[in-house]
Amino acid sequence: MTVVGCIGGGQLGRMLALAGIPLGLRFRFLDPGPDACAAAVGELVVGPYDDPDALDRLADGAAVVTYEFENVPVGAAERVGALPGPVALREGQDRLREKELFTRLGIPTARFGGVEAVGLPALVKKRRLGYDGKGQRLAETVEPLAEDELAEELVPFDRELSIVAVRGRDGDTRFWPVAENVHREGILRVSRAPAPGAPQAEAEVIAARLLDELGYVGVLAVELFEVDGRLLANEFAPRVHNTGHWTIDGAVTSQFENHLRAVLGWPLGPTDAIAPSVMVNLLGDLPSLPRLLELGAHVHVYGKEPRQGRKLGHATLVGADDETVAEAARLADAAASSGSGA
Amino acid sequence: MTVVGCIGGGQLGRMLALAGIPLGLRFRFLDPGPDACAAAVGELVVGPYDDPDALDRLADGAAVVTYEFENVPVGAAERVGALPGPVALREGQDRLREKELFTRLGIPTARFGGVEAVGLPALVKKRRLGYDGKGQRLAETVEPLAEDELAEELVPFDRELSIVAVRGRDGDTRFWPVAENVHREGILRVSRAPAPGAPQAEAEVIAARLLDELGYVGVLAVELFEVDGRLLANEFAPRVHNTGHWTIDGAVTSQFENHLRAVLGWPLGPTDAIAPSVMVNLLGDLPSLPRLLELGAHVHVYGKEPRQGRKLGHATLVGADDETVAEAARLADAAASSGSGA
Repeated sequence: MTVVGCIGGGQLGRMLALAGIPLGLRFRFLDPGPDACAAAVGELVVGPYDDPDALDRLADGAAVVTYEFENVPVGAAERVGALPGPVALREGQDRLREKELFTRLGIPTARFGGVEAVGLPALVKKRRLGYDGKGQRLAETVEPLAEDELAEELVPFDRELSIVAVRGRDGDTRFWPVAENVHREGILRVSRAPAPGAPQAEAEVIAARLLDELGYVGVLAVELFEVDGRLLANEFAPRVHNTGHWTIDGAVTSQFENHLRAVLGWPLGPTDAIAPSVMVNLLGDLPSLPRLLELGAHVHVYGKEPRQGRKLGHATLVGADDETVAEAARLADAAASSGSGA
Repeated sequence: MTVVGCIGGGQLGRMLALAGIPLGLRFRFLDPGPDACAAAVGELVVGPYDDPDALDRLADGAAVVTYEFENVPVGAAERVGALPGPVALREGQDRLREKELFTRLGIPTARFGGVEAVGLPALVKKRRLGYDGKGQRLAETVEPLAEDELAEELVPFDRELSIVAVRGRDGDTRFWPVAENVHREGILRVSRAPAPGAPQAEAEVIAARLLDELGYVGVLAVELFEVDGRLLANEFAPRVHNTGHWTIDGAVTSQFENHLRAVLGWPLGPTDAIAPSVMVNLLGDLPSLPRLLELGAHVHVYGKEPRQGRKLGHATLVGADDETVAEAARLADAAASSGSGA
C-alpha cells in the first residue's frame, strides 16, 4: 500500500486523503493538534512541524511527503524531501521575495517597497506569516517600515481572480478555469468558476512562469487582481487552494486528485469544468445541511469545532441558477453570523 | 458528530464512508474480518454479524444503522433497527419469496418453480445465499429439487440491464439511468449507463413497485433481463450495487451519497447522468493505475488483497470514446488473468 505523508492535518489534508483513498493510497499527517480533522481519514503523528523525530515518523515508508500550508518550515520540507520542493516555500514565505520573483519573471504585480515608493494610502503587510488578511494595515502617511514589513500599492481592482494549476514530475502542466473570488474581512466567501470573461490565457502564462521557474511539482494557486482588464499577481500559494475547492464537484479532475497524481509521478487528469460552479465557504457555524442539500449543493464538512470565522466546510453548486446560488450564500451567511461560532 | 453504523465492512461500506465523510458523518462498521477494507475510513467492530454484543456496539450512539450486503441476518437488522428495513432482507434472501413478490406486484419475471414447470434445460438455483453466479446449475432432465432449490426458466435474453433507485424516508423516489451490464463467469465485468435504448420508464415502474411495497428507505437495485424489448426482473438487491458504481463519477449524485441521505432522512440529490459512463471492474489483480489514469479513467481501489476473481476496484470512464473504453477493459482483463491473483 502506498503511503503519502502530509505536513499539516487540516481540511486540505483531509480532502487530499478523500481524493487519494480511492486511488489505493494511505495517508499519514503531521500536526501539532491532536484533534486535527484529517485524522478521520488517516494516521496522525502529533508533533511540532519542525520536530525531527516527528518528521521522520511522518516520512517513514512514505512514497512521498507533501504539505497543505505555505508556512511549513523550509528545513522540515527539506528533511522529508517534500514535494512541492522547498524552493517554493522559500520564495513564497517572504512577501518581498515573492514580489521580487514576480518582477524577475515579468509577471505584473502591484508596486511594492517603502511607503513613499508605492504612494498613499499604502497597504503595509507583514513580510511573513500573514494569511486571510491578517497582519495587514493601511498607512495614510509616509512612515518608516519595520524590517519585517513591506508596503504595497493599494490597487483599485475590479475583481479578484485566481488560477489553480498543476505541474507533474515530467513537466506536464494543466490549468483549471480561472475563478472569481469574493473576500470579506479578508476571508474567502465565494468562488465562481469559470469566472465570466476572465483572461484565462494571461492567467495561465503567469502560473506557467512560476511553475517552470520553481521546477514545481504539484498544485499551485495564484491570486490575481483584475484591473481594467489586466492582471496583477497578488500572491501564490504552493498548495491546494480554497479557490480550487469547486473542482471536487465541478471539474473532471479535482485539484486534490491532481496534486496527488503530480507528486506521485502519475499522469495528470483533465482540468475542464463540467459546468459553471460556485463554491460558498461555510464559516463560523454550519447552516442546516438538509437545506443546503435541497438546493442541490454538494456539501463538504471538515469535522472542525465551530468558532467565529473558522472555515468549517464549503458547499458547491454546479450548473445552478443565480437565485439558488444566492440562497446558498444567504444560508451560509446567516449561520456564520448567528450560530454558536459567533 | 453524526455516526452511521454499517453491517459489513467491505468496499460498499468503504465507498459509503467516502461519500459520507464530506457530509460530516463518521462511520462504524461491523465485520467478522479484522482486515475489512472499510476500516481505512471508519471504526471497525470485529465480530459475527449476529452477535448481539457486537451489534450493540455498532449501534451505540449511531444516528442510523444500514448494511452493505443482502445476506445480513434479519434478526441482526431488526436488533439495530436498520434501514433499509428488515422486510427487504426477508423478501430478498429467499429466491422463491423474491419471485413470488415480483409476481404479486405484477412485475414480469422468468417462470419459476419445479423443473417440469419451467421447461428444459432449467436453471436450478439455491434459494438462499447465492451470489455472483455461485450456487447455480443447469438441469438437462426433469429431476426433483431439494427443498432449498428453485428452478427457473432459462431466459434467452438480449442483454442484462439494471436499475438503481433510491427512496427517502418521506417516500421521495429517484431513479438513475438504466445500466447495461456484462457478466462473465457470473461476475460483473462492465456496466454502461445510460444503457442505449433502454426502456427506462418500464424499469422505473418495476423499481417503484418494489420500493413502495417494501416501504423502502435507501438505495435498491433491480437486475433485469431484456428479451425482445421487454423487461423481466431477475432479482433485487437491498443495497448499493456494483452496477451503480458509475454514479460516483458519472452522475450528479452518487448512489452512495443518496443512500446516506435517504437513511438519514435528508433530501435526495439529482440522479441525472453527467455524461455517458462505463464502469469496468478490476478483478483478481490490479492493472497499472497510471495507465488507467492516462486513459482518463476515474480509479477506485478498495484496498483488498489480490485473489482470483476478487473485486479489487473499478474504473469509470465518463464521456469516453469506444476505443478508450475497450483499452481500459483490456487492461483490466490482462491484469485479472495474468496477475498475482491468478
